[in-house]
Amino acid sequence: MAMKAPRGTVDILPEDTAKWQYVENKIKEICEAYYYHEIRTPIFEHTEVFQRGVGDSTDIVQKEMYTFEDRGGRSLTLRPEGTAAVARAFVENKLFGSPNLPEKLYYFGSMFRYERPQKGRMRQLNQFGVEAMGSEDPAIDAEVIDLAMHIYRSLGLKSLKLVINSLGDKESRQAHRDALVTHFDPYREELCSDCQSRLDNNPLRVLDCKKDRDHPAMKTAPSILTYLNEKSQAYFEQVKAYLDAMDISYTVDPNLVRGLDYYNHTAFEIMSEADGFGAITTLAGGGRYDGLINEFGGPNTPGIGFGMGLERLLMALQVENIEIPVDTKLDCFVAGFGSEKVRTEAVKAVHQLRMAGIQADTDYQHRKMKGQLKAADRLKARFVIFLGDDELEKQIVTIKNMESGDQKEVPMKDIVSEFKVLLEES
Amino acid sequence: MAMKAPRGTVDILPEDTAKWQYVENKIKEICEAYYYHEIRTPIFEHTEVFQRGVGDSTDIVQKEMYTFEDRGGRSLTLRPEGTAAVARAFVENKLFGSPNLPEKLYYFGSMFRYERPQKGRMRQLNQFGVEAMGSEDPAIDAEVIDLAMHIYRSLGLKSLKLVINSLGDKESRQAHRDALVTHFDPYREELCSDCQSRLDNNPLRVLDCKKDRDHPAMKTAPSILTYLNEKSQAYFEQVKAYLDAMDISYTVDPNLVRGLDYYNHTAFEIMSEADGFGAITTLAGGGRYDGLINEFGGPNTPGIGFGMGLERLLMALQVENIEIPVDTKLDCFVAGFGSEKVRTEAVKAVHQLRMAGIQADTDYQHRKMKGQLKAADRLKARFVIFLGDDELEKQIVTIKNMESGDQKEVPMKDIVSEFKVLLEES
Repeated sequence: MAMKAPRGTVDILPEDTAKWQYVENKIKEICEAYYYHEIRTPIFEHTEVFQRGVGDSTDIVQKEMYTFEDRGGRSLTLRPEGTAAVARAFVENKLFGSPNLPEKLYYFGSMFRYERPQKGRMRQLNQFGVEAMGSEDPAIDAEVIDLAMHIYRSLGLKSLKLVINSLGDKESRQAHRDALVTHFDPYREELCSDCQSRLDNNPLRVLDCKKDRDHPAMKTAPSILTYLNEKSQAYFEQVKAYLDAMDISYTVDPNLVRGLDYYNHTAFEIMSEADGFGAITTLAGGGRYDGLINEFGGPNTPGIGFGMGLERLLMALQVENIEIPVDTKLDCFVAGFGSEKVRTEAVKAVHQLRMAGIQADTDYQHRKMKGQLKAADRLKARFVIFLGDDELEKQIVTIKNMESGDQKEVPMKDIVSEFKVLLEES
Repeated sequence: MAMKAPRGTVDILPEDTAKWQYVENKIKEICEAYYYHEIRTPIFEHTEVFQRGVGDSTDIVQKEMYTFEDRGGRSLTLRPEGTAAVARAFVENKLFGSPNLPEKLYYFGSMFRYERPQKGRMRQLNQFGVEAMGSEDPAIDAEVIDLAMHIYRSLGLKSLKLVINSLGDKESRQAHRDALVTHFDPYREELCSDCQSRLDNNPLRVLDCKKDRDHPAMKTAPSILTYLNEKSQAYFEQVKAYLDAMDISYTVDPNLVRGLDYYNHTAFEIMSEADGFGAITTLAGGGRYDGLINEFGGPNTPGIGFGMGLERLLMALQVENIEIPVDTKLDCFVAGFGSEKVRTEAVKAVHQLRMAGIQADTDYQHRKMKGQLKAADRLKARFVIFLGDDELEKQIVTIKNMESGDQKEVPMKDIVSEFKVLLEES
């Protein structure tokens, strides 16, 4: 049946959007405090943006992208992640020329990956992410990690694990790469075909392989940390010192790698350790990418950022039994019964309340008095305004506080001002 | 050069996203007051959703959709408008079974149309829209129109024109349709080829034709208003009476049509009349669609809604010289100079301020004192916290109010509490 949402996508209905809004507003507030600003890039990009920015050899680019030709014959791709597009925008809009570097950006957006849908992995998923471009100060690495942790903590998550690593600079990575080739070469034939070509093209990604992860040579593989040169080591120490200063605890995991050439120095992931979270525990991942802006034709510009899955964040909140405060009550239900004149007066009253910023609703189903009161109950109305032919004649309405049961007669022309007083008192 | 945003799309940069956020928040607030709730549907749908919901014979479906096959061979389409997808979601999620009808929904979202890009017409555009499903009360038609007008007015727009019309019920439309065919048939050969087939399939759309709009027969074409039966006429009168009760002025334009079979009764458009707005003056358009839910396999359910272009809304604000209030000031810049110890203390102070919800930033470019103060100036910092080796030794900082020039020494451990006091006083 074609009349369903496409496989791997979902509708987010009002009972849930309220939760999404709460989480997104909280995140925006925190970004504001950290002085990050929002950027919005298009839903699709020229396919080349992701081939270059995510990497031709990655699973994302090879297997998971929604790529299509537009009516003008251009190859376009629905964005599978956020960083490449922000880097493209940073270069195209010449943000590297700002006097206020680093440019501290954040984004919210839908991402698209053609994968087998499963819990915590949808084809259209929603991410929040930040990119700080233009600084190679280890303090900004720590800030970016702090920001991600602050978001989770302030929403109430407790079972979190922060894992960090350093990929070092180019020289360190080259030394490590050589060591990896030397180490794995004797077992080449025992590795999967993907890893055999990775050994030639990108040996770091062998450490990432899901098929070969139990191969004995994995455990004894040389660690990047042994190959960090002095500069890279100092950089990593400094990042850790800043995290310590902020009381952010972390675990160093030398196997946390990112397989692209322009990733360097800091890499990190935040995982949920909550029981029942499921197999995919990564909530956010990020790192430094000092070569990325160059890849897009911009001047040498360091950068660091992360992406955070919002579906997974909501899952983590649920698993940790954290209630998201959502107000489901209606401030005022206007119940009008009687002639068409009464009805018109009710419409007018609702309109005036709303113009004054007061939340109000009324009946649009031609319900009788009893039905309207039931509706008001279901909407958890704090107040009901009663308006009938008698009231209309006397130019008054009755306002009832549904919690206390108190009632008050109010001149029709004073509804808004009287109602404001009642709302404040309640 | 493939490293640009695709034709017809733009990046929205921080200086502008602040304005978007302001407008969106304002709209959300108003939706809250009107008791509308957010729904989010996927970016793409099965192509059939739009073929049915927008209509096979429309320009949108015939010429303007981004349609592609996914890796599983499904025909998917990036949504060109909002209503069809919300109707699909309403049926799929059985919202018609809610006891709280009408279901009052709103959405924000990017829409996609492959058109020649021009001012006010992009290939990726952003819309806000509402759909109220489940009521055939003329009061809800008036509410929806009121909501749209309220949004524009509360943002400060003045040069607005509301145009309304009635398309009547099925019987009225059939009578009008017959009259149109009779009227235009003698001129069939003089009309464009599109209109010739429209005369057979959907004569109402002849009135919409851009090519034939100057044909003399257009001026004398029979008006739908002459063909409204009693029930339809009463419905339209009631909508107008409610608009009058809310002091919302409007013009009736019998040529305002919507070319799809399931559109009926109320149709409306809101236009900008501001000088310099350009040729495309429609800000929002909507109407009643009592047959749409049926089209998606749901039970008979009346509905009404509108879509509002956000790019055009921002354009209208600009043309009317309405300043969007955006706070560009930074609350606190922490300037640290001296040893690495000082630097660590600065990072810690910034972290603590942010944890307390105070907006703070610092230097990540290894600037000297003078450079840091210049940076604080550019960021329009309200306060600067000075921290050097001397201060560190004494465990104090100096907080300077950048507007008044007042300075104050504060114990390092009290930064947050002292700063809160200063912020409140300022």
